[in-house]
Amino acid sequence: MQRFALLGAGFIGSVHAANLAAHPDVDFALVYDVDQGRATALADAHGARPAADVAEAFDADAIDAVFIASSTNTHAENLRRAADAGIAALCEKPIDLDLGHAVDVVRYATDRSARAMMNFNRRFDRDYAELKRVVDAGEIGGVELIQLTSRGPAMPPLSYIAVSGGQMRDQTVHFFDLARWIADLDPVEVFATGSTLAEPRLADYGDVDTSAVTLRLPTGALVQIDSTRRTGYGYDERIEVLGSTGLVEARRHRTGAVSRYGTGRVVDDGLHPGWFERVQPTYAAALAHFVAALERGEPTTPSLDDGLKAQAIAEAATRSLSTGRSEPITYPTVAVTDL
Amino acid sequence: MQRFALLGAGFIGSVHAANLAAHPDVDFALVYDVDQGRATALADAHGARPAADVAEAFDADAIDAVFIASSTNTHAENLRRAADAGIAALCEKPIDLDLGHAVDVVRYATDRSARAMMNFNRRFDRDYAELKRVVDAGEIGGVELIQLTSRGPAMPPLSYIAVSGGQMRDQTVHFFDLARWIADLDPVEVFATGSTLAEPRLADYGDVDTSAVTLRLPTGALVQIDSTRRTGYGYDERIEVLGSTGLVEARRHRTGAVSRYGTGRVVDDGLHPGWFERVQPTYAAALAHFVAALERGEPTTPSLDDGLKAQAIAEAATRSLSTGRSEPITYPTVAVTDL
Amino acid sequence: MQRFALLGAGFIGSVHAANLAAHPDVDFALVYDVDQGRATALADAHGARPAADVAEAFDADAIDAVFIASSTNTHAENLRRAADAGIAALCEKPIDLDLGHAVDVVRYATDRSARAMMNFNRRFDRDYAELKRVVDAGEIGGVELIQLTSRGPAMPPLSYIAVSGGQMRDQTVHFFDLARWIADLDPVEVFATGSTLAEPRLADYGDVDTSAVTLRLPTGALVQIDSTRRTGYGYDERIEVLGSTGLVEARRHRTGAVSRYGTGRVVDDGLHPGWFERVQPTYAAALAHFVAALERGEPTTPSLDDGLKAQAIAEAATRSLSTGRSEPITYPTVAVTDL
Amino acid sequence: MQRFALLGAGFIGSVHAANLAAHPDVDFALVYDVDQGRATALADAHGARPAADVAEAFDADAIDAVFIASSTNTHAENLRRAADAGIAALCEKPIDLDLGHAVDVVRYATDRSARAMMNFNRRFDRDYAELKRVVDAGEIGGVELIQLTSRGPAMPPLSYIAVSGGQMRDQTVHFFDLARWIADLDPVEVFATGSTLAEPRLADYGDVDTSAVTLRLPTGALVQIDSTRRTGYGYDERIEVLGSTGLVEARRHRTGAVSRYGTGRVVDDGLHPGWFERVQPTYAAALAHFVAALERGEPTTPSLDDGLKAQAIAEAATRSLSTGRSEPITYPTVAVTDL
Repeated sequence: MQRFALLGAGFIGSVHAANLAAHPDVDFALVYDVDQGRATALADAHGARPAADVAEAFDADAIDAVFIASSTNTHAENLRRAADAGIAALCEKPIDLDLGHAVDVVRYATDRSARAMMNFNRRFDRDYAELKRVVDAGEIGGVELIQLTSRGPAMPPLSYIAVSGGQMRDQTVHFFDLARWIADLDPVEVFATGSTLAEPRLADYGDVDTSAVTLRLPTGALVQIDSTRRTGYGYDERIEVLGSTGLVEARRHRTGAVSRYGTGRVVDDGLHPGWFERVQPTYAAALAHFVAALERGEPTTPSLDDGLKAQAIAEAATRSLSTGRSEPITYPTVAVTDL
Repeated sequence: MQRFALLGAGFIGSVHAANLAAHPDVDFALVYDVDQGRATALADAHGARPAADVAEAFDADAIDAVFIASSTNTHAENLRRAADAGIAALCEKPIDLDLGHAVDVVRYATDRSARAMMNFNRRFDRDYAELKRVVDAGEIGGVELIQLTSRGPAMPPLSYIAVSGGQMRDQTVHFFDLARWIADLDPVEVFATGSTLAEPRLADYGDVDTSAVTLRLPTGALVQIDSTRRTGYGYDERIEVLGSTGLVEARRHRTGAVSRYGTGRVVDDGLHPGWFERVQPTYAAALAHFVAALERGEPTTPSLDDGLKAQAIAEAATRSLSTGRSEPITYPTVAVTDL
Repeated sequence: MQRFALLGAGFIGSVHAANLAAHPDVDFALVYDVDQGRATALADAHGARPAADVAEAFDADAIDAVFIASSTNTHAENLRRAADAGIAALCEKPIDLDLGHAVDVVRYATDRSARAMMNFNRRFDRDYAELKRVVDAGEIGGVELIQLTSRGPAMPPLSYIAVSGGQMRDQTVHFFDLARWIADLDPVEVFATGSTLAEPRLADYGDVDTSAVTLRLPTGALVQIDSTRRTGYGYDERIEVLGSTGLVEARRHRTGAVSRYGTGRVVDDGLHPGWFERVQPTYAAALAHFVAALERGEPTTPSLDDGLKAQAIAEAATRSLSTGRSEPITYPTVAVTDL
Repeated sequence: MQRFALLGAGFIGSVHAANLAAHPDVDFALVYDVDQGRATALADAHGARPAADVAEAFDADAIDAVFIASSTNTHAENLRRAADAGIAALCEKPIDLDLGHAVDVVRYATDRSARAMMNFNRRFDRDYAELKRVVDAGEIGGVELIQLTSRGPAMPPLSYIAVSGGQMRDQTVHFFDLARWIADLDPVEVFATGSTLAEPRLADYGDVDTSAVTLRLPTGALVQIDSTRRTGYGYDERIEVLGSTGLVEARRHRTGAVSRYGTGRVVDDGLHPGWFERVQPTYAAALAHFVAALERGEPTTPSLDDGLKAQAIAEAATRSLSTGRSEPITYPTVAVTDL
């Protein structure tokens, strides 16, 4: 049984709270939020206790693990505290929007042999896990081309964009991680180009809403990623991996399996309205992996180093958006063997 | 808030227990089972109390509703007790394997204006509900032909078959209900023919494992149902409704959306291994409907009368299996307006 | 090289003419039609010669094979003439609307060891042939249930209905043949029920436009066929075969592979507008089989006996429409070994 | 009626010959090939006449149009001759592998107001035409992202590669044309990167077998194209267009619509073995367009200028493969209004 403190009682915090409450091997003990009322409401709904001070979450006598779902600018500090206390941490991405700061905290955690896991939840999607299994089993031969599609249904508010770090660091970063994970290789170069088609004011932030990214892997295999902020047809995500002997595809998800036949056309159920409906089950699956690893004393992945590497690709991609050329990707060196 | 007692702590009882525990408007108070140890274990897992005597479940001061998931031969008695106590009941099918007894108890409940709902959970399937919406909205014109497929992955044990009442009463009955519900009409005639292809010993029980049923609706519209006990490819269920201007289909469900392309073929994810994986979400949805109706004082459907009618079709279908001819369907008359 | 005479220059005759003209091993010599102008026009378009008298088609010195695509009431007579002349015949169904007359002519042809083939063109559909291959290879185990769907887009004119012999003999008969062919078994019983939902005036002809048929095979395996004359969504045909270890399905054909994604729905290309667009390639494939068999001196199937048997099922099905009970199917005995 | 001379009696010439022979408004008069025996055989098979000298094809008294399907290095000269003779030309791509030479011949033809059409046959694919219709009708709003997939089943021989001009000019060029056509815009920049994953010896030719291309359109819309020479699963081609309000996709084509259900998986028919099976019907459709335009005196598109522009993109893409940066695309100026 793992005793958890949840940091952050916003939307995603409430998702994690329900999963913590339902997990048979979790003692959901504590909720902390800067907004105490919010923490109390969420704790009450799930039989947990609200914390008056964040320090309560880092009391190793009472807590085994923290779930860091607080605001982005607090992730690094919370990871440090968990490392200090010898408490395991499951951390929402990113470690820190500033890659240098992120590297610092990962070194800090590594020096203290901290147990930590990045919550790259898509790795725990049923279909992506099956796709990965097919690739790893060699069923499509060697990987030659990966295509990832990441399309949100609606522009986030500009206030969100302003602090997001830009499309590469905020949206595409999930797919940088997926590409690394699927290929089991670190990309060496990235080309990115983008436009402001959905929201011209993004240009004021040096950001884009529609982008095409090409990664080159050390084997010469290529990765294409398209990211858009606003579709007119819902949330659209898919992955296709071309190997030397076959192809595996994780298709778009539909909301149902009803078909309506009329003259000259068949109308099927469409895509999910938003990302949450699409990826919802992945949160419980990621948590289940983390808890099982803690229970068994096994490694938790994706590691903080995986988090750094996805961010490093996002940095190079952001640079490429300006330079118009393929940029080399430099990965920070942290003496991490197995976090 | 509705205070519930759960009768029956077997497999399906445990499914209902989890749903009762998770429903925000339910106070999951009591679990009763003839096996007290089983009742205690299930109650403990969900913060409910085990009942030493079934009578505790019918104490109207402490309980608002019972969920009847006990063995089939106790359904009728439990419905009577609920009616006596003025407690609402959500009842697994059938009311009683003997249609005459079932009619008696429904009359009894009706005379007492009891609130009761048959747990025909498939009516609450997302896709079937959408199919029904399409039909009701007139999007395919008038109903002309309905096709339902009901195929289980593996033969149940003969011990189960022996007390099941036969394929029509045990398996196809769910689809008799769906056909009535979709068409909003009571079939007038039924032809059924069947064979023992999967398990020849079924013949000893006068039962079949593979059957084809044709219903005639009062409008002349037709219904085809195929029911098999054992496929080699998982659990297979689908519905197709042909109208005068279009067709609507609730397709087979797949376990995922992964495709593997190889030479000359594409391998997709298959069907669910069993019925439970396919219909699991319908149980929570049916319960949610029942609770919402109780909270709002609205009618709960499907009614006990719906339960009787599906059974009446099963009786006529069972008769047709022997006679080799289309049999008229006689519906029991119960002065039920709205249960 | 086979020298062909085509009998009948109507719509289907013109389809056959184009296929005869394009076939590398066919010398398309002659066209006969009661309407000489029509024969001349069709012959001219394909470099054939119009015949002034039908007798020219049965001149064994000049002609190796006749393609009988003349009106139904002339099929039997043309088959007799071909048998007399020792000329091979490819014959559109039915042999004769009157089963007794049909039996007579088949006996006549058999006594003369005539080479003849029924043009059950659907057997030569690429998908149906593949489905048959899967079944024959044992990939789904033993056949247990076959479902066939036959739905036309629009009511034929009443003048057509009046001489058609009714839905069983005119439309469903193709699927009786397919069922026999797929299962490699002769059904022993048939139940049929139908309604006049699309065109009430059909009742005046003792005919139906919407029907459900159930066949029983000698193994106990079952066959369900639904036939409708008018859909609101195009021409709809599909086959599904459930075996003891798997299922094989020949899905509906679509006009294209374009998908349009909008909010909450995906619109795909629909079904073909009519039967001809769906089955068009089967005519050339059937002809190719016939020609190849003639060239190699191999058997031509489906045989006239196959034609009789499909008709015999249609007779029993038509009877069942009136009696409301499962009718035994009696097959005419013709001492046919290999036509 | 248009009198045609066919230049080139190789594989693709024989495809065109069959289409010319079958077209009702074409008088298929002449076949020329440097290999006279091949020309004679093809001419004989279709009732045409072999030409002893290519000059016969440019006799305006006997010929209205030439179909240029001869070897690539003769296209330019044949276009010049057609322009001189005032004979219309339907020309296989490319005009000339050397863009400068191609520009010269197009100027020459333009000065003489020659009628000519590039045989970009994919524009005449049923599904691509429908996709284009959806885009043009505004059904998906403004174009924001186009994705094109071009994957061949097997490496061509190195001897072919050696004279092909490389993957951009030989394979991807078709998709450069499709991108321009779909968007109705000329790309302004191109980034391309590639690898030799299927055949390392391609590096000796400065060529690649696996590439990712990104085009930028003047509106800021983006285009991604992946091209591979060898898959392990057949010929794979698809297009997806993301607009501001929806998405339209022309999906992969399958060889059939048969599904085989087994435990945990469904096996569907796969992709076509090669490009020819996939695009075969487009050749007749392109020819039909050309003939109809000639008959009506209407413009024939795609024009020679379309041919030049696709080649210009291929040139810039080839450059980008070496420079590792996004390259501007310069289009040759030919005073072409409407060829």
